Amino acid sequence: MTTTGPGGPAPTLAVVGATGAVGTVLLQILSHRADIWGEIRLIASPRSAGRKLTVRGEEVEVLALSEDVFDGVDIALFDVPDEVAAQWVPVAAARGAVVVDNSAAFRADPDVPLVVPEVNAHTVRNRPRGIVANPNCTTLSMIVALGALHAEFGLRELVVSSYQAVSGAGRAGVETLREQLALVAGTELGTTPGDLRRAVGDRTGPFPEPVALNVVPWAGSLREDGWSSEEMKVRDESRRILGLPDLPVAVTCVRVPVVTTHSLTVHARFQGEVTVDRAREILATAPGVVLFDNPAAGEFPTPADAVGTDPTWVGRVRRALDDPTALELFVCGDNLRKGAALNTAQIAELVAADLR
Amino acid sequence: MTTTGPGGPAPTLAVVGATGAVGTVLLQILSHRADIWGEIRLIASPRSAGRKLTVRGEEVEVLALSEDVFDGVDIALFDVPDEVAAQWVPVAAARGAVVVDNSAAFRADPDVPLVVPEVNAHTVRNRPRGIVANPNCTTLSMIVALGALHAEFGLRELVVSSYQAVSGAGRAGVETLREQLALVAGTELGTTPGDLRRAVGDRTGPFPEPVALNVVPWAGSLREDGWSSEEMKVRDESRRILGLPDLPVAVTCVRVPVVTTHSLTVHARFQGEVTVDRAREILATAPGVVLFDNPAAGEFPTPADAVGTDPTWVGRVRRALDDPTALELFVCGDNLRKGAALNTAQIAELVAADLR
Repeated sequence: MTTTGPGGPAPTLAVVGATGAVGTVLLQILSHRADIWGEIRLIASPRSAGRKLTVRGEEVEVLALSEDVFDGVDIALFDVPDEVAAQWVPVAAARGAVVVDNSAAFRADPDVPLVVPEVNAHTVRNRPRGIVANPNCTTLSMIVALGALHAEFGLRELVVSSYQAVSGAGRAGVETLREQLALVAGTELGTTPGDLRRAVGDRTGPFPEPVALNVVPWAGSLREDGWSSEEMKVRDESRRILGLPDLPVAVTCVRVPVVTTHSLTVHARFQGEVTVDRAREILATAPGVVLFDNPAAGEFPTPADAVGTDPTWVGRVRRALDDPTALELFVCGDNLRKGAALNTAQIAELVAADLR
Repeated sequence: MTTTGPGGPAPTLAVVGATGAVGTVLLQILSHRADIWGEIRLIASPRSAGRKLTVRGEEVEVLALSEDVFDGVDIALFDVPDEVAAQWVPVAAARGAVVVDNSAAFRADPDVPLVVPEVNAHTVRNRPRGIVANPNCTTLSMIVALGALHAEFGLRELVVSSYQAVSGAGRAGVETLREQLALVAGTELGTTPGDLRRAVGDRTGPFPEPVALNVVPWAGSLREDGWSSEEMKVRDESRRILGLPDLPVAVTCVRVPVVTTHSLTVHARFQGEVTVDRAREILATAPGVVLFDNPAAGEFPTPADAVGTDPTWVGRVRRALDDPTALELFVCGDNLRKGAALNTAQIAELVAADLR
């Protein structure tokens, strides 16, 4: 451990999965936020070990994932596939690190808090396994705004539909969209049955269908009764984060040809009558939220606005025409930042303050 | 009027707006459906008059819109902007033609039936003004499937979100997307705040924001309380077509970078408990509907499947996890075919049978 910092030794941070799409953004975020860390140790699969990455303006060599690599680490941030996390997160925790894990492996574990600092920061202190879970990117892209509205109005039901960016499927997702875009530019594709599928062939990457000039109503793996794992995550994680275990949540997750930033339409029903004016006041002042909502001036959020920024962008705020207790919203959040790396970094900062 | 056909003279048909995106598809459809028409007269703005278009394998010269051009016309199909329809539809009707109008000008008129043949064919006979309205493309892309479910289960509430294709904004919409796609192919655009807007500049065509690598939560013009005209159409027209004037309908309309075929997520609540098995039976046998719903085999509809086809494609059929009276669906329909030209042609055939 390094020994700078006013309140004791500055904690040592490990980033596991440093070379991935989220890891890359995480290193940028760690370089730009208040520097509370001593050593930052970068870790990846043996395949990536030895590469050098830049964090806080310095080149740091990537270490191979192993048991010993966690010695002296205070907090370890994991962004790796579920099965890798399931194996290695307990190893890091056993070596004494508090782990902030961005996989789905521990999100449903009642002994692992699922934390969004703007919504349920207090839960981070109760971590009997030494593990804190970071929510799924789709949930994170809307939950800060919903948490603020819930605190005032009391949420009673959610119906949400997603417009999910390809980077939610990692670097391979982005590469696949770019490759397909090159293929469709300058063509008449997208106008006859199956023409896109024939043109794209097996170049679908991590997606089940072509995503350029298309939308694909599927993300994740198949769960019971036709639900996708992504849809189940949005429902189950929203309930946990909001502390509403019985909240009715209906979700359909759809992939769209956007590089980064998930968008969602939200139909939110509350315990009593709501007004758009009060909802706007709440959203305009909520930490981590930007209200961008003036259609008369052409103002509503799109992924092109929100990408690369930290907050959740909210617009199209309307009261349901046929239900004075419901609001309609359109929400955009950068799935790599607040949807992953930023929330992980924020949780790490909460844990660091708690360890002090 | 031509005088072939078994039941009397074959009716003369006029197509007003023959050179537009919908008009082009309409001529293809008229060429491939059972030929019940005598003369087919093609009409457009004076700017397009004199051009030759192919219908039923023959070249036909386009006539300029005028009062006299409707003389002898039995049925006139209009696909023109609202303000042109408001002026010229009554002219054609006064000259004795029954008009099937695809603008929004008459859709709310109680003396003008709003017809989807699979759902409310009977209403076509009651047309005191000699005008029948064709619904909006977004409504049409889902309403056949919903009509079938409503007939069995009794609809009680709808929450829908759209993924609307650019051809819903006509040829200019398609040209704009193609131009923007050429601009973004091979670039890193879509990764930093505002980069797309700067790159696209004023080449946004009929859209308020860049649509390539983006989704835009706006379609149509601004109505009261922040609603878009497109959202109001989906609500008001769904109520009229289904004969449910008080149906609660919550809608958010979003443009996506797809050339043709609108998709919608649908959360539909019914009067009593529903089962997925029965819903699937209904959808599998409903006229004008294709059930494509086997996620285990990678089967769910996308625009790339539905484009260029007639039916409404339905998949992702699930019962809401927290409400046994609600179903979730993902629906795709070609916005130029069933969403516009095909439904217009079907209405014209109903009217022709009625005139006989």
